[in-house]
Amino acid sequence: MKTYRQELWMHVPSRRGFVNITHQVEDAVRSSGVQDGLVLVNAMHITASVFINDDEPGLHQDYEQWLEQLAPHEPVSRYRHNRTGEDNGDAHLKRQIMGREVVVAITDGRLDLGPWEQIFYGEFDGRRRKRVLIKILGV
Amino acid sequence: MKTYRQELWMHVPSRRGFVNITHQVEDAVRSSGVQDGLVLVNAMHITASVFINDDEPGLHQDYEQWLEQLAPHEPVSRYRHNRTGEDNGDAHLKRQIMGREVVVAITDGRLDLGPWEQIFYGEFDGRRRKRVLIKILGV
Amino acid sequence: MKTYRQELWMHVPSRRGFVNITHQVEDAVRSSGVQDGLVLVNAMHITASVFINDDEPGLHQDYEQWLEQLAPHEPVSRYRHNRTGEDNGDAHLKRQIMGREVVVAITDGRLDLGPWEQIFYGEFDGRRRKRVLIKILGV
Repeated sequence: MKTYRQELWMHVPSRRGFVNITHQVEDAVRSSGVQDGLVLVNAMHITASVFINDDEPGLHQDYEQWLEQLAPHEPVSRYRHNRTGEDNGDAHLKRQIMGREVVVAITDGRLDLGPWEQIFYGEFDGRRRKRVLIKILGV
Repeated sequence: MKTYRQELWMHVPSRRGFVNITHQVEDAVRSSGVQDGLVLVNAMHITASVFINDDEPGLHQDYEQWLEQLAPHEPVSRYRHNRTGEDNGDAHLKRQIMGREVVVAITDGRLDLGPWEQIFYGEFDGRRRKRVLIKILGV
Repeated sequence: MKTYRQELWMHVPSRRGFVNITHQVEDAVRSSGVQDGLVLVNAMHITASVFINDDEPGLHQDYEQWLEQLAPHEPVSRYRHNRTGEDNGDAHLKRQIMGREVVVAITDGRLDLGPWEQIFYGEFDGRRRKRVLIKILGV
């Protein structure tokens, strides 16, 4: 059995944003030499997500607006978490909706995705460097 | 190590619906010959979910009503994604709440589920054929 | 390849609560002898979650209040599921927001977590004993 580990460094210059990381994950799968297995891709931070959906800018605006409705950033006093001096209480909630991680099958040395599936990093408290973990297990 | 891959074809005749796929996943585990491992079950489409919960029709109606409240289908003009000519913007949001995938343990050649855990396909933009991927890794 | 299975018994004395189970999962990883692999941690019950976020009491109060807003416990007549004699319809919905499971990488014999990542059991219908499953796969 083979295993492989890689970190991606993300830097979203605004508070929130979505970044397509499918190619980086595909590269990691190639580097691993795994033909058949599973790849875990997860945010290593608790105010960010990794999720799979469509690479369509209108949809990403829909997500932004919807998440802001479900867990508004302001007023920051709305969240007890922010009494610790943070202003990212909303980001911890938004990330639960979008999820921490995805697990994707590897078949014939490639990501086994449906036709429209793309892997995204979702940032909800950006303007600093954060990491994504890629861990691969297989043969 | 053994790996196994299978696709299920789903066809929900209405826009939204839930289908219990536990037996099909159990069959795939049996076919794989894996006694100890993990099975990934994921929607290959971005307007559908795979999730685990109770096989109780009242609960499914609760999910339907709740998701429609959190991300209403209409007016379709509400979603920027629908400016692309689609009318499924809501489906991309509903699927994030319910999730893309589940990972289930395999022990003694069987799905290692709690007493009420059942695996469902959740359709949010149906009336066409879609696929679910089953990928198994283990010994 | 090695596999390892362990159950944790949980007992939250109130209806809802969050319990940090990171140490128990770390202990299981040590017991497994796996140096490189994946660990699946999932609630075996459909009114509970396993999720990863911050161990900060203010944040947990924010989750409690937010989930109660998104899927209120009362009036219990609000949920069709409760016509079966249950009063936990809300718990099945809350658990979908917070998720059923996490998959975490194991590297060098340890949980490969980011600096603030902690694993929690989320209870939404407590006052009875419930189980969490830990399944480990690796070398």
